[in-house]
Amino acid sequence: MRKQKSEGVFHLVKEDSSTKARLGVLRTPHGVINTPVFMPVGTYATVKTCSPRELEDLGAQIILGNAYHLYLRPGHNIVKKAGGLHKFMSWKGPILTDSGGYQVFSLGENRELSEEGAMFKSVIDGSKHFFSPERSIEIQEAIGADIIMNFDECTPYPCDYEYAKESMELTSRWARRCKDAHSKDGQLLFGIVQGSVYHDLRRKSAEDMMEIGFDGYAIGGLSVGEEAKIMYNMIGYTTPLLPRDKPHYLMGVGTPENLVEAVSLGIDMFDCVMPTRNARNGSLFTSQGRVKIKNAVHKRDFTPLDPNCECYTCRNFTRAYLRHLYMVNEILAHRLHTIHNLHFYLSLMRGIRRAIADNIFFRLKNDIPALVSMG
Amino acid sequence: MRKQKSEGVFHLVKEDSSTKARLGVLRTPHGVINTPVFMPVGTYATVKTCSPRELEDLGAQIILGNAYHLYLRPGHNIVKKAGGLHKFMSWKGPILTDSGGYQVFSLGENRELSEEGAMFKSVIDGSKHFFSPERSIEIQEAIGADIIMNFDECTPYPCDYEYAKESMELTSRWARRCKDAHSKDGQLLFGIVQGSVYHDLRRKSAEDMMEIGFDGYAIGGLSVGEEAKIMYNMIGYTTPLLPRDKPHYLMGVGTPENLVEAVSLGIDMFDCVMPTRNARNGSLFTSQGRVKIKNAVHKRDFTPLDPNCECYTCRNFTRAYLRHLYMVNEILAHRLHTIHNLHFYLSLMRGIRRAIADNIFFRLKNDIPALVSMG
Repeated sequence: MRKQKSEGVFHLVKEDSSTKARLGVLRTPHGVINTPVFMPVGTYATVKTCSPRELEDLGAQIILGNAYHLYLRPGHNIVKKAGGLHKFMSWKGPILTDSGGYQVFSLGENRELSEEGAMFKSVIDGSKHFFSPERSIEIQEAIGADIIMNFDECTPYPCDYEYAKESMELTSRWARRCKDAHSKDGQLLFGIVQGSVYHDLRRKSAEDMMEIGFDGYAIGGLSVGEEAKIMYNMIGYTTPLLPRDKPHYLMGVGTPENLVEAVSLGIDMFDCVMPTRNARNGSLFTSQGRVKIKNAVHKRDFTPLDPNCECYTCRNFTRAYLRHLYMVNEILAHRLHTIHNLHFYLSLMRGIRRAIADNIFFRLKNDIPALVSMG
Repeated sequence: MRKQKSEGVFHLVKEDSSTKARLGVLRTPHGVINTPVFMPVGTYATVKTCSPRELEDLGAQIILGNAYHLYLRPGHNIVKKAGGLHKFMSWKGPILTDSGGYQVFSLGENRELSEEGAMFKSVIDGSKHFFSPERSIEIQEAIGADIIMNFDECTPYPCDYEYAKESMELTSRWARRCKDAHSKDGQLLFGIVQGSVYHDLRRKSAEDMMEIGFDGYAIGGLSVGEEAKIMYNMIGYTTPLLPRDKPHYLMGVGTPENLVEAVSLGIDMFDCVMPTRNARNGSLFTSQGRVKIKNAVHKRDFTPLDPNCECYTCRNFTRAYLRHLYMVNEILAHRLHTIHNLHFYLSLMRGIRRAIADNIFFRLKNDIPALVSMG
């Protein structure tokens, strides 16, 4: 039943002639997504500082939630009783949840892996919890996102070959169990390709995932400390191994430069805390490069943060005002910065899509301000 | 010149037959204000968590800024160079600034009073500063609010008669100096009546202020620790001493009950941090009484915070979601709570105005939910 419904959810609209970039349309229960797409991160059932109305105004097509965090607080059963995450947070568009694999990996000393799954201690109260592939799927089904992820082990960087191999094989066995456990109609399940920085492991992982069969394929375990050229090499190697007619999702990446490069290597979907987290730290993306708003040079600068930007922040406020709010630690600073940075990322993605459609993506690939201004 | 322009800025529309409540219209350079009015507090050039657009949507008619805070950060000269506070914070409506008197009083040990003014240490970096009546007016003119306040000494509670008398007399001498120093066309200057809880001192202070002549009259030094009945007694005693044809402003008050009572005693204007500060502490005003959102009883409550409320928060979210956001310390919790509490206060004031207009204020005076629902 489910498999039938999920067939044909991704439609490849166009492939770029000069790069591996693609234009696509991904159908989900809560709406259609034009790819390449950037997904703002809403860990705890909120994209930090933003209201759902603001996300709509910004043109966010899909947002991300975290099964791990929502399991701990408020608890996936509360989200389920609320009628699912969409209703709980009043977001009408599509949602993707991460499986908790990456978060459990991030716990380091506080987790213990076995064939069955991962035991971990809550950072909130020290209580013990167990995530298995089946449990992760159960939690993600309760949360009710449009797209859910398989439960994987995400390896650190650097990672020796033997550990990376064992871990990748475990992730493959867990992926099978996730697929078997998944039963929710209409909800798409994506597989995650691991294998650290080793070509043969990435290939084997991709083959394992395709054999199991997923609605989309993610590349995990990158942007965890390796150099950008190694990351690009891994993306460039792995993406061509994935099914052409399924969405390709690069997890947890990255800078605007990373996004453009990864699109040119065939990636369709991204998520990253960078625009929202940097916003709260006063680090802002503009057509003139990064701006650190706390710098004294902005104290008497009565011009907009980015004169080429059409966001609410840039249409109404000056750098001097934003710096003031930031220096006195006002919540409105975090809000206005988040709106601006998300606008920058979402405009960049709109610009990328238009550039691919207009056959000028290759020419504009190294001109991020031009792509943003098209968005 | 200025005096001429400021005549007739307040127009008394109606006086209630059963109470001392009044309906009025106050004209300012940035727009007309219907009284009785509540002014949300925007200390640092932002009503905490709110964008100017949200304040407009909420129907805020006028907001308050603090000369003391803006003098320290970002500095009144920066606000002036920005084109004034309205332009700096992108708020198009009227603004009132407090003179810094109350803030300097709040510094306790960290300030030294003299006939000339108040020396104080900055809580930010320990640097020394001096506020005099002339300096306060200079700062408030630079900031450029529509209504500014005279620089007063605000006495604590309890306060012995001798100190209260000397302080009140100093405030009167300072008020004269403020009036003499004030030169900005169109900007209204209000005098503040002090005198602690002593009738004769309140009377003398009111007489002094009227002799100097101001565009409006405030009652200061209340809600500083005294019981409500003492506060009401002071308001009831002082308000009839003030000119009938000028606005009466009760500073720093208070609860919804305080507001209704003070309106019935002839007060036209209010400011208080209560709706915004309580919001950030998860203490919410509803038609069913106060709600502490962190209480466990709300964990699985999938109903709106207030089913009778039409604010953005109540139209879109449940108590369970608000509690979740609050427990994980998400900024959106503070935002949604602030929107709700301000909506409650502003609806209450709209309801009060309508009730006075409809001659039912006396009957509804003790039914705050009814007044709010009319607003």
